Amino acid sequence: MLKTPDHQVAGHEAGLGKLGPLVDDSGRFYKPLQGDKRGSEEVAFYESFSSNTNIPEHVRKFFPVYYGTKVMKASTGSDHPHIVLKDLTLGRPNPSVMDIKIGSRTWGPEASEAYIAKCLKKDRESTSVPLGFRISGLQVYIGEESGFYKPDRTYMRQTGLDDVSLILRKFVSSNPSSDTETGGQGPDCSLASYVYGGPSGILAQLLELKTWFEDQTLYHFHACSLLFMFDKALTSEGARSNAEVKLIDFAHVTDGNGVIDHNFLGGLCSLIKFISDIVAEANDHTGTNGKVEL
Amino acid sequence: MLKTPDHQVAGHEAGLGKLGPLVDDSGRFYKPLQGDKRGSEEVAFYESFSSNTNIPEHVRKFFPVYYGTKVMKASTGSDHPHIVLKDLTLGRPNPSVMDIKIGSRTWGPEASEAYIAKCLKKDRESTSVPLGFRISGLQVYIGEESGFYKPDRTYMRQTGLDDVSLILRKFVSSNPSSDTETGGQGPDCSLASYVYGGPSGILAQLLELKTWFEDQTLYHFHACSLLFMFDKALTSEGARSNAEVKLIDFAHVTDGNGVIDHNFLGGLCSLIKFISDIVAEANDHTGTNGKVEL
Repeated sequence: MLKTPDHQVAGHEAGLGKLGPLVDDSGRFYKPLQGDKRGSEEVAFYESFSSNTNIPEHVRKFFPVYYGTKVMKASTGSDHPHIVLKDLTLGRPNPSVMDIKIGSRTWGPEASEAYIAKCLKKDRESTSVPLGFRISGLQVYIGEESGFYKPDRTYMRQTGLDDVSLILRKFVSSNPSSDTETGGQGPDCSLASYVYGGPSGILAQLLELKTWFEDQTLYHFHACSLLFMFDKALTSEGARSNAEVKLIDFAHVTDGNGVIDHNFLGGLCSLIKFISDIVAEANDHTGTNGKVEL
Repeated sequence: MLKTPDHQVAGHEAGLGKLGPLVDDSGRFYKPLQGDKRGSEEVAFYESFSSNTNIPEHVRKFFPVYYGTKVMKASTGSDHPHIVLKDLTLGRPNPSVMDIKIGSRTWGPEASEAYIAKCLKKDRESTSVPLGFRISGLQVYIGEESGFYKPDRTYMRQTGLDDVSLILRKFVSSNPSSDTETGGQGPDCSLASYVYGGPSGILAQLLELKTWFEDQTLYHFHACSLLFMFDKALTSEGARSNAEVKLIDFAHVTDGNGVIDHNFLGGLCSLIKFISDIVAEANDHTGTNGKVEL
């Protein structure tokens, strides 16, 4: 049984006559190959990466499991080749998800002039140039009654510098829709220590990824996203965080040619700084850091 | 007694009717203010930085000592305002010097369209975009007889990806002009462990700077350079390296606005990777790393 994914927050969506990803009930995720060379380049990356013996095991966990490609009936009704991956939201019935495109530059040096101009415009109009990343999509699970907080894509595209810290807070709050601008108290960051902090939280995972990026010269990940996921309902079951970080979208990956991916690494470090500020603030409040409660 | 500096490797040079830096015999360096707003912005940075109490002392040593500004007879003969700094090459009679412009992007988000287009062109044509930095100037002291190896500026501007690693090796070699392409043995990297490696070498200094850049959100250093300096003749006097790293050229520094300088940091990490590869190789050869000699 194929259907459209419930928890997609960014990227192409399947619709009437529109190609988009599909999922089945065995936990596989089918991403239609994009028509131009982006599709074949994403396949080339997955093939290269999955057979590359220079990728440490602890780094491999940050990437989707790849099962190959398959021609199948697409969301448009006709046959189309798809990349087959493990569904990332599997095992999280009510996932809170955030998609963050990393890098102040989303184009590679070998792209066409027209493509570079298009990307540069988007990078300058969004927070990519000033911040080194931009938030492309977000959904936060509130509860059975309220369901998900999921701002629409137009809003996400317009997020500026000041919104970014707010959105990163919303992601780990029980009241994500509360805005101080509209008289609310603002997001409470009640899950910050659990989701972002701790030994297995998102910050620890980002730092692990950073260590690899300081050294790896295999790939340059242009226009890739980091996906943050956790399920609030599963948080009470144990102390260990179920929060997870994955890299996705590899249509513009190029060879590293012996140079580190300084563009990705810079954006990653910028994001780490934002997240660690939120964790430090949460620790201050709870006194976890040994500091006086505010 | 004012004169033109002996060891300038990049930037505007004083000449007949041309503004350029001057030095005096008391160890001061006079940099003429650039006519447009770049001059005033560089002064603004030095004023802000020198009075900023949030700069740790161990970071301050990476910046030139600033004495203020002074209107004085310029290299052109007429009165002109100058920035007064401590001469960086002071105490090194025969300095080997390398100027490396850091960042894959040399323009700030608030620059004019024309300026952005001009910088972007240079960044794409040089190694800035692919590598995150470009080498702008170099001189390597060989010895009393041969003097300095100092490739001309046209050559430096044309250095491509493959040249960068070679030039970084030349900087720490006793035979910097030896090229494998012309039948030579290639640079011997005989000073790599001493200049780049060790507890007070350039790599250690870059890592110290990196730690600050991972956290500091005060300034964004667009189009800044790192200057590497050492004096080969002083190397035998003690075990401690006389190699030094300085940041220079602050005409395009902007406020950090709570965001780290991911563009500078990314380029710095890329440079660190190149240098640490050279150090590791040198250690392999000397067995310092406990590894078998090649």
